[in-house]
Amino acid sequence: MTKSEIQIREAVVEDAPEIARLLHDFNTEYEEETPPVAELIRHAERMLREGEMTVLLAGDGPDGLALLRFRPSVWTEQQEAYLQELYVVPALRGQGIGEALMQEVLATCRAHDAGWIELNTGESDVAARSLYRKLGFTNEEGSEGTAMLYYELEL
Amino acid sequence: MTKSEIQIREAVVEDAPEIARLLHDFNTEYEEETPPVAELIRHAERMLREGEMTVLLAGDGPDGLALLRFRPSVWTEQQEAYLQELYVVPALRGQGIGEALMQEVLATCRAHDAGWIELNTGESDVAARSLYRKLGFTNEEGSEGTAMLYYELEL
Repeated sequence: MTKSEIQIREAVVEDAPEIARLLHDFNTEYEEETPPVAELIRHAERMLREGEMTVLLAGDGPDGLALLRFRPSVWTEQQEAYLQELYVVPALRGQGIGEALMQEVLATCRAHDAGWIELNTGESDVAARSLYRKLGFTNEEGSEGTAMLYYELEL
Repeated sequence: MTKSEIQIREAVVEDAPEIARLLHDFNTEYEEETPPVAELIRHAERMLREGEMTVLLAGDGPDGLALLRFRPSVWTEQQEAYLQELYVVPALRGQGIGEALMQEVLATCRAHDAGWIELNTGESDVAARSLYRKLGFTNEEGSEGTAMLYYELEL
């Protein structure tokens, strides 16, 4: 498979079952607690219908997804983008699907007039970090060169 | 000043000039590029009016702020919260204002039915990291114990 053969398209409401399946597989692989697929379908349908998320799907499987959130910027009249999830099915990794998704993520952000995109990833996820760096993302803070860290709390 | 004397209140549209001043000082202190105050006032007014951000203000100065964003969750019927900025004016640090703001941040998140809050901070910001840990935030991923990293890209 060459990169030019990787088809990326924006999901519509009817794609909710496939999105839910991929998100469920993602959580299961990384041993995260996950709602059942039926519940994820319901959330995905609502979020897509209300324009609360933008999902890009790779290939016919679909074989991977990128899940984006947009919000108005505090700093400008543009939008801010947050890449909430990026996933490629295990059997098809290393073939450029993640990079093809990310290229389309950046194009989609620009089409939404986003001036900024942010994401978080694990220190040990070497492949993802390498991809993000290749695309120009930085984890370094200002002039210090120290890392920017992500924190979370369940309420 | 004892912690019980630190008053925290939720900002209204009329607070936009003070919010803009604090955000401008924040950016200037950390050598980030910043729009002029007049432009920040305009954005803050719009964001507050449209419910796009929730800002908590500490003290009469005001002496600090917490800037929150809420979005529907991908995973549940609850909300997800993002603490976008936390700032205390330099002269008043070390007196518990940041912690008082954060306690109110958590209460505000619960009042907004958020099941989750996330934020990012610099590796070198020892005081902030210590506060987040004290409140129960984690930077560690699943069972691995490795760090979760924040990446960003200007588009």
